[in-house]
Amino acid sequence: MNTNLLRSVVYIAALCGLYLSTAMLIPAMVDLYYGERDWALFAICAAMVGAISLMASMATRGPPPAFSKRMGFLLVNVLWAVFSLVGAIPFYFSDLELTFAQSLFEAISGITTTGSTVISNLHQVSPGILMWRALLAWLGGIGIVALGLFVLPFLRVGGVSFFKMESSDTGEKPFARIATFTRAFMAVYVAITLACIISYDVTGMGHFDAIVHGFTTVATAGFGNYDNSFAAFDSHALLWVSTFFMTVCSLPFSILIVLLVRGRLDALRDPQIFVFLAYLCTFAILGGLYNHVRNGIELPVALTHSFFNFASILSTTGYASEDYTLWGPFAVAAAFFATFMGGCSGSTAGGIKAYRFVILFNIIVTGLKKLIYPNAVYSVRYGNQNVDADAQRAVFLFISAYIFIWAIGSMGMALAGYDFATATSSVITALSNVGPGIGPLIGPVGNFAMMNDPELYILSLAMLLGRLEVLTVLVLLVPMFWRS
Amino acid sequence: MNTNLLRSVVYIAALCGLYLSTAMLIPAMVDLYYGERDWALFAICAAMVGAISLMASMATRGPPPAFSKRMGFLLVNVLWAVFSLVGAIPFYFSDLELTFAQSLFEAISGITTTGSTVISNLHQVSPGILMWRALLAWLGGIGIVALGLFVLPFLRVGGVSFFKMESSDTGEKPFARIATFTRAFMAVYVAITLACIISYDVTGMGHFDAIVHGFTTVATAGFGNYDNSFAAFDSHALLWVSTFFMTVCSLPFSILIVLLVRGRLDALRDPQIFVFLAYLCTFAILGGLYNHVRNGIELPVALTHSFFNFASILSTTGYASEDYTLWGPFAVAAAFFATFMGGCSGSTAGGIKAYRFVILFNIIVTGLKKLIYPNAVYSVRYGNQNVDADAQRAVFLFISAYIFIWAIGSMGMALAGYDFATATSSVITALSNVGPGIGPLIGPVGNFAMMNDPELYILSLAMLLGRLEVLTVLVLLVPMFWRS
Repeated sequence: MNTNLLRSVVYIAALCGLYLSTAMLIPAMVDLYYGERDWALFAICAAMVGAISLMASMATRGPPPAFSKRMGFLLVNVLWAVFSLVGAIPFYFSDLELTFAQSLFEAISGITTTGSTVISNLHQVSPGILMWRALLAWLGGIGIVALGLFVLPFLRVGGVSFFKMESSDTGEKPFARIATFTRAFMAVYVAITLACIISYDVTGMGHFDAIVHGFTTVATAGFGNYDNSFAAFDSHALLWVSTFFMTVCSLPFSILIVLLVRGRLDALRDPQIFVFLAYLCTFAILGGLYNHVRNGIELPVALTHSFFNFASILSTTGYASEDYTLWGPFAVAAAFFATFMGGCSGSTAGGIKAYRFVILFNIIVTGLKKLIYPNAVYSVRYGNQNVDADAQRAVFLFISAYIFIWAIGSMGMALAGYDFATATSSVITALSNVGPGIGPLIGPVGNFAMMNDPELYILSLAMLLGRLEVLTVLVLLVPMFWRS
Repeated sequence: MNTNLLRSVVYIAALCGLYLSTAMLIPAMVDLYYGERDWALFAICAAMVGAISLMASMATRGPPPAFSKRMGFLLVNVLWAVFSLVGAIPFYFSDLELTFAQSLFEAISGITTTGSTVISNLHQVSPGILMWRALLAWLGGIGIVALGLFVLPFLRVGGVSFFKMESSDTGEKPFARIATFTRAFMAVYVAITLACIISYDVTGMGHFDAIVHGFTTVATAGFGNYDNSFAAFDSHALLWVSTFFMTVCSLPFSILIVLLVRGRLDALRDPQIFVFLAYLCTFAILGGLYNHVRNGIELPVALTHSFFNFASILSTTGYASEDYTLWGPFAVAAAFFATFMGGCSGSTAGGIKAYRFVILFNIIVTGLKKLIYPNAVYSVRYGNQNVDADAQRAVFLFISAYIFIWAIGSMGMALAGYDFATATSSVITALSNVGPGIGPLIGPVGNFAMMNDPELYILSLAMLLGRLEVLTVLVLLVPMFWRS
């Protein structure tokens, strides 16, 4: 680790702190508009963070080092740590009386687009705080798509490198392509957010609710303005609007861009999209039928709630329209296993993700064939592409590490005294950036307000690990990483 | 699939039926000795199965086909199916009033060395039935070691091929080596069983209890003669004797042979032995300390029970000395995750197994290093051997399929109405051939008597899948397998 590299990482982090301090002016303005005295909190935090960031950036300015993978890993970890710490500041100094662990948990839950909360009685919380939560999630959504599209493929952590832009683009220089692509992505992200806000608004949400929920829907984060989430609105139309946008934002943004900017429907032929929609529909239909048959709920009502809640879990958003764990044991188990799965790669969704399941399935089938004919050559395919040994190993690494962390974390939560369902589901809902777990405490109608600081640190770490695709963080634990 | 191959498979199965019918004479003699009228049941079953097997073997006798991998897969599946069906017959016709599903479950639980039972009030059951359960488990233990040592390496399902005999043996011809090795294995298996029976007997068990528990300890099966398992004996000395033998029988028999026949201590240097003993001690010590600190149990007592119960779970035996799930949430979670893990390859233990964790860990570490230096060449090691890509993929295939089956099975059990803990733990305890799950119904002091037939079929299938290392069964689902 040379000092030039560390200096440069601090410099970039300071620049991001500067941006984030500017973003704090938005909740300040919201509070001013609604006549809440909280505006001063955000203004002071903005000034404080802005000043420190400015000084840090000036102190560390200098020629950039050659970009290396090591710098990439370090940068990603440092950036998310800075976002988390800076994001926590307004919570900590607000009148919500949160501990530092709680403030950090809330900020990390936002920035990782998880949407778990330690705040009860949300209807009494100032609009500025609600806006700050939504904003953290929305910015976190941008961060994770950028990470998935530009950084992880370069670091070879994700299998995202499969989803290259079409070959007709290769005329452009790489950096010009990234710039074009970034502009297109931001345009699409903002456009979908606006479409979602307007749809919520015309379907009956209040203006402020529509803005906050629009931000957290597109980021598949799941922060809402009410303790009972979407149950507060009691509108089937809103559930379907939300289901639509949660599902759209679980699709790869690279494909949404090609679809929306160029109008090319064939972009949807990515196998992970088919697989994601297939398991979404399977869970939703089974859940709806189960609730219909077991509890006598009218089928259209049962399906509406089932589609909404399973889209919410599988897109890793985390809204709830009612306590679906009361539908019966199958709903509990289905919600639990759905929490592992997640959306598509290159979206704002978390979890193991559909493209890994596509590759996994093909590895298993190919492996079984090879057991029968050991000398035949079978290649593992993803659509019409070959999945090389490195990419196969990346899938294996990710899933193994994911399940290992889940097991260790669950035993940690059990040691802290939580029952089996709460312990196992709290860790996986954090790791997959979903939001609710199962059980009375942290289920769809619960929250994390009753948890103690040590447990909140465990879950905060799990959220960050999940969001940064696990390996990006684990690589820091290899001693070799720190050697010059 | 040609007919000669099918004929030959039926022929071998019929021969095994003949052996099993002979084995039925043992419980018949036990019942005669104790003056129970059940002896006639076993005599009639033996005659019936013997006659059918004899006819089938005569009808299908003929020149053996060339041994192919396809025949190997088919044979393993057919043999275990025949063992299961024949094993179920005495239960079905006994006066226990079991359904066919219950009888089959009990037989499969024996033959797969799982040890889950559907029989309540074991103290009222005739000695012949108890002996039959123990015998099925003991024979199942032989079957699985033979499978692991000779068949699976040939089929390339397990990574067991690592554990070759030492190179000094290569002078012998392969079949001569297998014969020598089989004799050595049988000698060691019988010797350990006798040692275990005698140890139990002198430590205070009755003769019959010592024999039955000796059989089911060495097979790491866990069938006992009392509803409350080892709690019936209330002896710490017996717990330690059992802990010792359960642990020994979770070690690879190939290594026990080298150790016992040739007295070579260096055979113990296999990395999986170290890893297995390491996680066994970790679980046992943490569990004991937890029970000591949380419930104020004296430390020696707490450690005795913790070592016994975690050795029982990790060796996939399934005895219990008390309801360890009452120690607290950590004990529940630890027992649950320990149920996935299992013993060493080439032993009578089931589960994911220590050697896969060794390889898995090395794959992860190597993968992380490759993320930092993508162009460096790192090989995955097992001890001082190289793990090639095929063997790495086999580990990946197995673990993925294992977890996938667990998830699907758990949702099936939840659909049948079982709560989260019961549904998820019943499937994994079956798949890993452990025995007890968690929760009041099937926990360490429960059994499977209250379950309905469909659930028993799900769990029976899970036991067989787990015992045959999953892929051996899944390969039958590939259409290519059945083509000529």
